[in-house]
Amino acid sequence: MEHKEPAKRPSCRDRQETIVVALGGNAILQPGQRGTFEEQMENVRKTAVQLAQLILSGKRLVITHGNGPQVGRIFQQQEIGAREGIPEMPLHVCGAMSQGQIGYMIQQALHNELLKAGCPKTVVTLICQSLVDPSSPAFADPTKPIGSFYSEAEAKKAMAEKGEVWKEDSGRGWRRVVPSPEPLACAEIEAIKALIDKDVVVIISGGGGIPVVRDSRGALSGIDAVIDKDLGAQVMARETGADVLLILTDVANAAIHYRTPGEKILERVSLKEMKTYYRQGHFKAGSMGPKVLAAIRFVEGGGKMAVITSLENALPGAEGRVGTVVVP
Amino acid sequence: MEHKEPAKRPSCRDRQETIVVALGGNAILQPGQRGTFEEQMENVRKTAVQLAQLILSGKRLVITHGNGPQVGRIFQQQEIGAREGIPEMPLHVCGAMSQGQIGYMIQQALHNELLKAGCPKTVVTLICQSLVDPSSPAFADPTKPIGSFYSEAEAKKAMAEKGEVWKEDSGRGWRRVVPSPEPLACAEIEAIKALIDKDVVVIISGGGGIPVVRDSRGALSGIDAVIDKDLGAQVMARETGADVLLILTDVANAAIHYRTPGEKILERVSLKEMKTYYRQGHFKAGSMGPKVLAAIRFVEGGGKMAVITSLENALPGAEGRVGTVVVP
Repeated sequence: MEHKEPAKRPSCRDRQETIVVALGGNAILQPGQRGTFEEQMENVRKTAVQLAQLILSGKRLVITHGNGPQVGRIFQQQEIGAREGIPEMPLHVCGAMSQGQIGYMIQQALHNELLKAGCPKTVVTLICQSLVDPSSPAFADPTKPIGSFYSEAEAKKAMAEKGEVWKEDSGRGWRRVVPSPEPLACAEIEAIKALIDKDVVVIISGGGGIPVVRDSRGALSGIDAVIDKDLGAQVMARETGADVLLILTDVANAAIHYRTPGEKILERVSLKEMKTYYRQGHFKAGSMGPKVLAAIRFVEGGGKMAVITSLENALPGAEGRVGTVVVP
Repeated sequence: MEHKEPAKRPSCRDRQETIVVALGGNAILQPGQRGTFEEQMENVRKTAVQLAQLILSGKRLVITHGNGPQVGRIFQQQEIGAREGIPEMPLHVCGAMSQGQIGYMIQQALHNELLKAGCPKTVVTLICQSLVDPSSPAFADPTKPIGSFYSEAEAKKAMAEKGEVWKEDSGRGWRRVVPSPEPLACAEIEAIKALIDKDVVVIISGGGGIPVVRDSRGALSGIDAVIDKDLGAQVMARETGADVLLILTDVANAAIHYRTPGEKILERVSLKEMKTYYRQGHFKAGSMGPKVLAAIRFVEGGGKMAVITSLENALPGAEGRVGTVVVP
């Protein structure tokens, strides 16, 4: 798809739209990489170049990101370390650790990139708690496997002693499964708004946020679950009153009849059309599905535009010039 | 020491002084505990009760904390996991993870405590980078041991291949040592100030901040080092223009001639006196030493009052009614 003529470039001090960006896994870890710090930091540096372009074009940025591989490894390190006597932290705490890890890398790389471009700005990571509904049907049917494979005996012991849910995984052994409830709100939203107002670039909602539930008196507590990061980004976009939700992934567009002879790339699509495609089941769960759902919800809730495109297309994507652009 | 009459209690909406609190290790992990999540969270809940009292008395709070045991364990988990093929993250990334972990626990517990007290407030953790000077003498003489004990052969291999410094540790084996440079500034200070202005409670500078250095063009990069958390708190107190630096630990007062027949508890002490005691070597390095140094520097730099006292004394301490109170 050809890029259309870009809008006149304002100075980095002008304030324009607020964009919530959802970074895909490839922004931090590329397929086939081992995942060393050097590899991840190099990927994050390239991602920061794309993000800086958005800021240099005058947009205010809120950055959200996935954490799958990172939190998976931290969780495995807990399991392995526990065998040597180091008390293991629960999954929700591992999520907090992964927000620290990834946020730090992005905030440092983006700070450096903006400085290089002559537009220094403060970039910060906020540890983010996402409220989920404990009565959500997701809790009755945990589906997301976490951690290593174990024997049936070990799994049954964990189920009996800790009340966890474990499932046999296609002959490879037993794995713990956790629910994947929908995020409802972010506990730190007032802080995020205050920072956006002050032109601070905010990194938030890593991995969709740390899942927490409220008790009857409003007190929060962490819960072992996995939140979809694109739905987390959509909550953030809604709550900050963002203009654009920009979902960056490894393809330039969503498509219907994907990988069939009738495949059709989606460019500018109305909300109504997109809802029809979604209902028809064109988008894979755990892949394009939640991205399309996040886009639909954002526009349905009054957002101006939601865009699904590749990381490399960040700037033209944010301006609706490339990618799959969902409009009211 | 008897508590003096407390000041009239203002409503939780009034704005008074800004206090930077430095939480000691005992605020998160008690001596003798294994360090399970449940134990740490229970300690943090008790700490939150103390912190909430400060907020309820009308003070604006910036919370800093140590991370020694937590980052030590994360670092060990990296080492152990690496043997099973999980790429290990460097110490500065482990620091970021520990900020996420501890910050999350404090932010949740304090949110809950404030809610219970009828004074809900947003509490957030910011991932914090502390600038250190790469030409600091600390880098020429690394002194802080990290990670597990290894054989001489393994240590020499790491020294040759990775340029690390390792030292033999009193016959127990070899351990890696890292420098402990002084923190100079916090990269995220503008965000912290914006949040204080909006009455958000900020958790920052965990473990003294993630040590970073600037290159000649200003770009930041992480470095494996250990920062003293009390000096980190002092930098934060200076940069936020705080009124009081409140250093909470496991004793109610600093003392001179500590644990000798001439031991003398310090109560209200002038800056000049405290500098004399410090120069005379009354305070142990790695224990009371950096706390006293942080207090001296804060008051010397124009701070109204620095207080060293126990966690339980947080509120009367912040008001200079108990503890070792350093004044100009």
